[in-house]
Amino acid sequence: MMLTVTLNAALDVTYRVPALAPHTTHRVSDVRERPGGKGVNVARVLAALGHETVVTGFAGGPAGTVLRELLAPLAPHDALVPVDGATRRTVAVVDAASGSTTQFNEPGPAVSPAEWARFLDAYDALLRDARAVALCGSLPPGIHVGAYAELVRRARAAEVPVLLDSDGEPLRRGIAARPDLVKPNADELARLTGARDPVRAVLGARRRGARAVAASFGPDGLLAATPDGVWQATPPAPVRGNPTGAGDSAVAALLAGLVEGLPWPETLARAVALSAATVLAPAAGEFDAAAYERLLPDVSVTERTEHS
Amino acid sequence: MMLTVTLNAALDVTYRVPALAPHTTHRVSDVRERPGGKGVNVARVLAALGHETVVTGFAGGPAGTVLRELLAPLAPHDALVPVDGATRRTVAVVDAASGSTTQFNEPGPAVSPAEWARFLDAYDALLRDARAVALCGSLPPGIHVGAYAELVRRARAAEVPVLLDSDGEPLRRGIAARPDLVKPNADELARLTGARDPVRAVLGARRRGARAVAASFGPDGLLAATPDGVWQATPPAPVRGNPTGAGDSAVAALLAGLVEGLPWPETLARAVALSAATVLAPAAGEFDAAAYERLLPDVSVTERTEHS
Repeated sequence: MMLTVTLNAALDVTYRVPALAPHTTHRVSDVRERPGGKGVNVARVLAALGHETVVTGFAGGPAGTVLRELLAPLAPHDALVPVDGATRRTVAVVDAASGSTTQFNEPGPAVSPAEWARFLDAYDALLRDARAVALCGSLPPGIHVGAYAELVRRARAAEVPVLLDSDGEPLRRGIAARPDLVKPNADELARLTGARDPVRAVLGARRRGARAVAASFGPDGLLAATPDGVWQATPPAPVRGNPTGAGDSAVAALLAGLVEGLPWPETLARAVALSAATVLAPAAGEFDAAAYERLLPDVSVTERTEHS
Repeated sequence: MMLTVTLNAALDVTYRVPALAPHTTHRVSDVRERPGGKGVNVARVLAALGHETVVTGFAGGPAGTVLRELLAPLAPHDALVPVDGATRRTVAVVDAASGSTTQFNEPGPAVSPAEWARFLDAYDALLRDARAVALCGSLPPGIHVGAYAELVRRARAAEVPVLLDSDGEPLRRGIAARPDLVKPNADELARLTGARDPVRAVLGARRRGARAVAASFGPDGLLAATPDGVWQATPPAPVRGNPTGAGDSAVAALLAGLVEGLPWPETLARAVALSAATVLAPAAGEFDAAAYERLLPDVSVTERTEHS
């Protein structure tokens, strides 16, 4: 199976309001809840691509209970580890007038050392059956910044290919533990390397320890530095829609390509097409399967020459 | 005991953010939860004033569970009736930069006719031991607009003094059922009567069926039309602070005065002093007991001559 780790899983709540007016009171006309957190989103896409998928991480408190209830009927298997603290809610306020979203993210549960130790035991057990693992998103309070580095090392010890998608110090330390692939976006890549030139930046990120780096540049697609070369993968035309979840779809496609042993250009093309098909889907975080099939042959993948 | 009814009880959530910026993502630095809904607030103030108090209404879903857990250690007794739908959350986003609040109120549970019937049975049983009852706040979805009128009639049949604090059509119909007291604020009073002159408005509201009307005008205090005359009660000086809960404190003082058989000027003075002491308290919805004792003798109560 494919394993995704979401240490700071979330209950994603969407509030629809007629128009957002700061410093006033709004009647929310529509409340929606769905299981969230990057790794949970990646798992749903992997499952939709036909992979048996397991999600782990932490779940606790009232939002954790609702998260697990909403996850139960979905394809990914729930292997979340109970925690005393409360799973965070993210509240997205959608302004019906403008269509824009204002987001509030709670911090997540304070995880104790004993809970972290229990998670590591569960993670090691899950790795035995995993074909690949994706480590996704921010860390909840109480977990040390070297957490992803530790999870990368355990995956490598278990000989399970490991992808890391995080930010800041946890990403920096995680890369040094030599994951098979990292997927920063443009901002995360810039913060990590300080380099402004994209090719220099992905090569710089790779030199920090990742076997491969696939950086997402939104509508411009992916730029990847791999052991086989540097590639740019670009969608055939700009797509308009909701970019929520496009990065998570790219992670799912990259992890699937890693497991299937596809050549990098093929993996990158799939990741770019799946991202674009996610932007085109009416619901945030889902993808338009017909658009994916249509876009895939037209993604351009070109090799870039190293110039650093 | 004193009974308060909150048909649309809430879990009040406060998010603190450094600065609210519409259409961006915010990390919430601090999340607080407390039991909410007008009648729950009124009950807490009544209990703080030394009255044995019972809260009823509906509670359900994850927010209902948390609401009851948070209510358990507090003084008011929990007689909330279970409902299949989910108790609403209200989310108050406090902007640390400006101190201002942007509020999002979920609609509340859809209450079925069977659940409403179960509530009426519970309410009738509670009325047997009630010295007075306050009916507070908005109606959750599914409850007919004549609900408060029905609750007023049942209280009157049980010979329990009844106060109504609501808005719109539920208030309009509730008044026609002849409650002992209604406490609209200035906006609610204007919507109810269409009158712009305050004295005309409270007299107009009283003619609709209420035995007495005590309208709150924020920093200007209360204006009351009663069987014994029309009184204006004004705080000694404007107070600065957080007005959240000031109206609920006024309701608690009015209900207490009703039960204690105090003359109207004394009841109104207490309500105005308690409102001001609530504005002065550092935490929203609590009152400063020392300020209450200090302010009470200096509240001015003057009789107004009927001029309509």
